[in-house]
Amino acid sequence: MAITLYDLCGRDERLRFSPYCWRVRMTLAHKGLEVTTVAWRFQEKEALAFADYDKVPVLTDGDNVVTDSFDIMRYLDRAYPDAPVVGEGMSLQRLMLFKQSVERSITPALFKIVALDLLAAIHPEDRDYFRKTREARFGATLEAVNDPEQGRHLLKQALVPVNAQLKESPFLDGDTPSGADYLLFGSMMWAYTVSTETLVDEKDPVAAWFKRMLEVHDSVAGKAVTVRDL
Amino acid sequence: MAITLYDLCGRDERLRFSPYCWRVRMTLAHKGLEVTTVAWRFQEKEALAFADYDKVPVLTDGDNVVTDSFDIMRYLDRAYPDAPVVGEGMSLQRLMLFKQSVERSITPALFKIVALDLLAAIHPEDRDYFRKTREARFGATLEAVNDPEQGRHLLKQALVPVNAQLKESPFLDGDTPSGADYLLFGSMMWAYTVSTETLVDEKDPVAAWFKRMLEVHDSVAGKAVTVRDL
Repeated sequence: MAITLYDLCGRDERLRFSPYCWRVRMTLAHKGLEVTTVAWRFQEKEALAFADYDKVPVLTDGDNVVTDSFDIMRYLDRAYPDAPVVGEGMSLQRLMLFKQSVERSITPALFKIVALDLLAAIHPEDRDYFRKTREARFGATLEAVNDPEQGRHLLKQALVPVNAQLKESPFLDGDTPSGADYLLFGSMMWAYTVSTETLVDEKDPVAAWFKRMLEVHDSVAGKAVTVRDL
Repeated sequence: MAITLYDLCGRDERLRFSPYCWRVRMTLAHKGLEVTTVAWRFQEKEALAFADYDKVPVLTDGDNVVTDSFDIMRYLDRAYPDAPVVGEGMSLQRLMLFKQSVERSITPALFKIVALDLLAAIHPEDRDYFRKTREARFGATLEAVNDPEQGRHLLKQALVPVNAQLKESPFLDGDTPSGADYLLFGSMMWAYTVSTETLVDEKDPVAAWFKRMLEVHDSVAGKAVTVRDL
C-alpha cells in the first residue's frame, strides 16, 4: 500500500524540521517502508480536514489515516511487526517514560537554543501565527525564551542519563537504533535542521551518536536539506 | 533453595536503608521469593570475602553468589523467569537508560536532602568511614553537600518525566510495578528510611505512587523500620 506523510515545511519547501515528523520518518526508514511526503505549512488546516486533525504528522497508509507521532509509531509496529520500534508491555512503558523526558526536559532546552533561528526558518507567512501560538503557550516572547547559553546548560543536564548510557551501548536501544533513539533524534534533528548553533559538546557521547544517526538507514536524515544548504 | 541477602544496616540493626538493597528486596518480593537478610555494616569487608566483593548487596542462592544490585536483578530474572522485572532487548536497554537517570540525577538530589540525616542514621563506628569516603567522592564536606531546599528543587526537575508518566499509568512499568518502579523506589526508600525531610510535594503524582509502593507485595517496604520508629 502507498504511504503518505504530511510533513511540516519551512521557508523553503525542502526544509523539513518537525521533531514529530522526524520520529515517523526514522520509523518508516527503520522498517524499510517507502513514503511520499507532502509538504505542509502551519496554517493549512483544511488540507488535514480529512484526518479530523489540525497538525502534522498525519500518515495515510492505503485507507488508514493515523494522527499523532507516537500513535503513528505504534500503528506502524502493528501493521509492519518486523523490527518493532516501540515494543509492548514494559518495553512500551519504559519508552513512554523516556518520551516524557524528551518532550518535557530535552525539547524545551533545545527550544531555548534555537527559538529565533526556528522563527527565521519558518515560512514568512507563518511567522505571525507561530509567534502568537508559542508566546501564548510559554507566556513569554520568543526573544525572552531564546537563550542559547542557558539552553545548552539545561540540555547538558537533561542529557546526563543519555550520555552515560551511550558509553555502554552505541545506540540507546542497543547495538542498533530503535524507538528511544528516534524520539531523541527527532528533537535534535529539529534543532539541527533550523540552526547552526552548537547543541552539545563535541566530546559528549551524544555528539558521536547524532552523527551515527545521520548515517543510519541509508542516511535518510543526513541527506535532508538544512539551513546550511539554503 | 535458600536465598540470603547481605543488607546494609545503620545505628539500629533493623534500620535497612541501602537503595541498592531495596531494589533487590522489592525484586524478591515481586517474584514471591523468601529471603533471609544478614545485617551488614560498611566496614565488615571480611564478611563478604567469600563473594570477592566489598559492598552490598550480595545475594546467595544455594551455591550461587551474585554481587551488584542490577546484576542480582538480572540473575533473578534468569533463575526465576516468571514475572520478569528487568526484561530483555529493548526493554532492558530502556531500563538501563532510566537507571542512569536514577543514579546520576535523582539519587544525588535525594542525597542533598538527607546527607546529614543519613550520617546520623549510620552506626557511630561507621560514621568516620562514611564521611571520609563520601567527602573524597564529592570533593566537599557532607555539611556543604547537605542542602535540602536545593535538593528538593533538583529532585523536582529530575522527576518531571516520572510525574508526567504517573499521570498516564499507576506505576512506571504499567498497571503493576516492575523493574523501573523498583529502581526509583530503592532510592526514595533510602531517603525515607533515614530522614523525615519532605522529599516531594504531596500533590505530585510521585507522592501517591510512593505510598502505593510501600503497600505492594504485602507491604514489604511499608513494614520496614525507619527513623520514625526509633
